[in-house]
Amino acid sequence: MIEQYPSKYLERAVGEIAKLPGVGRKTALRLALHLLKQSDETSIALAESIVQLKQNVMYCHLCHNISDSQTCDICSNPLRERDTICVVENISGVLSIENTGQYKGLYHVLGGIISPIDGIGPAQLEIDSLVERVAKGGIKEVIFALNPDMEGDTTNYYISKKLEPYNILLTTLARGISVGNELDYTDEITLGRSIQNRVKL
Amino acid sequence: MIEQYPSKYLERAVGEIAKLPGVGRKTALRLALHLLKQSDETSIALAESIVQLKQNVMYCHLCHNISDSQTCDICSNPLRERDTICVVENISGVLSIENTGQYKGLYHVLGGIISPIDGIGPAQLEIDSLVERVAKGGIKEVIFALNPDMEGDTTNYYISKKLEPYNILLTTLARGISVGNELDYTDEITLGRSIQNRVKL
Repeated sequence: MIEQYPSKYLERAVGEIAKLPGVGRKTALRLALHLLKQSDETSIALAESIVQLKQNVMYCHLCHNISDSQTCDICSNPLRERDTICVVENISGVLSIENTGQYKGLYHVLGGIISPIDGIGPAQLEIDSLVERVAKGGIKEVIFALNPDMEGDTTNYYISKKLEPYNILLTTLARGISVGNELDYTDEITLGRSIQNRVKL
Repeated sequence: MIEQYPSKYLERAVGEIAKLPGVGRKTALRLALHLLKQSDETSIALAESIVQLKQNVMYCHLCHNISDSQTCDICSNPLRERDTICVVENISGVLSIENTGQYKGLYHVLGGIISPIDGIGPAQLEIDSLVERVAKGGIKEVIFALNPDMEGDTTNYYISKKLEPYNILLTTLARGISVGNELDYTDEITLGRSIQNRVKL
């Protein structure tokens, strides 16, 4: 069914909004009609914030996190522990870990994960720059905080091989049952690992 | 928990995107990071389409549907039946009915529905302009296609009282069981009405 929109501007806006991930044409239409109802300022503020985001955001030259300056707030913060690097897939990883308030070291954003099926190999990721950071010295530990899946494990393995010569501590996030989860609903692989990696009370 | 974003541009974009209905801050962040990954053109096309939508869309001076010109494509189409007006709450109503391909008359967009609880009275809606259109003559039937709820019924009643003096046919959408729905899952009010309004096979 080809929907007939009463205005080509509406049609274009719906088309553009529907390109966002997880947004279908029905939702896009609802959002476009919502924007039409709002004041000019509200809708233009949204549009402007998107343009400004694209035009002004920079990437930290050290950790590749997004930043408003050449070096991000975390890398330039003298209170952070400079001998620990946490490797994450993308910027949301940094945000998630920062929100725990449990980590005081630095980060390294890979910008993706090794996934041959999607045509992403090590060369597309910020792996060489991580090895360079470690090679410069002063790093005691690299923590891998990638998703606990096959791509994550492959990437962990690839990078750990590259970092082996530097004789530093390589760790990964603990895997086990989630806090608040019921044992009955925990999958057997997770449960199996948490028995293997049980900790002293 | 106050989330710390690594860039004020990201923070602003997330704030603006999260103002959209049904979009929380987590989704807004996901969308903003998605836009950051896209080419400049893609993101700027989205922003521009929103600005263009706000700046260029007009409202038809007859039916108040959105339009690219003073009179919308439906009102200016000589093939539409000019003696029938379908009253809808908003623009999505027009789109929904147009998509059925079953209606060849004109529309009238109220721009809302009488809802004292939300402070919306008849004066805020395009009711006077509807009465004017009918008063000019040439209209045989007004079809009410508002939502089948209390506000819809109130609005139907209010407008039908206003249109009574003109002696035209006033109708409303048939209410009954949905095509494809199971009787067991149909609520009793709907089922009751569809027994009362049963039609000959």
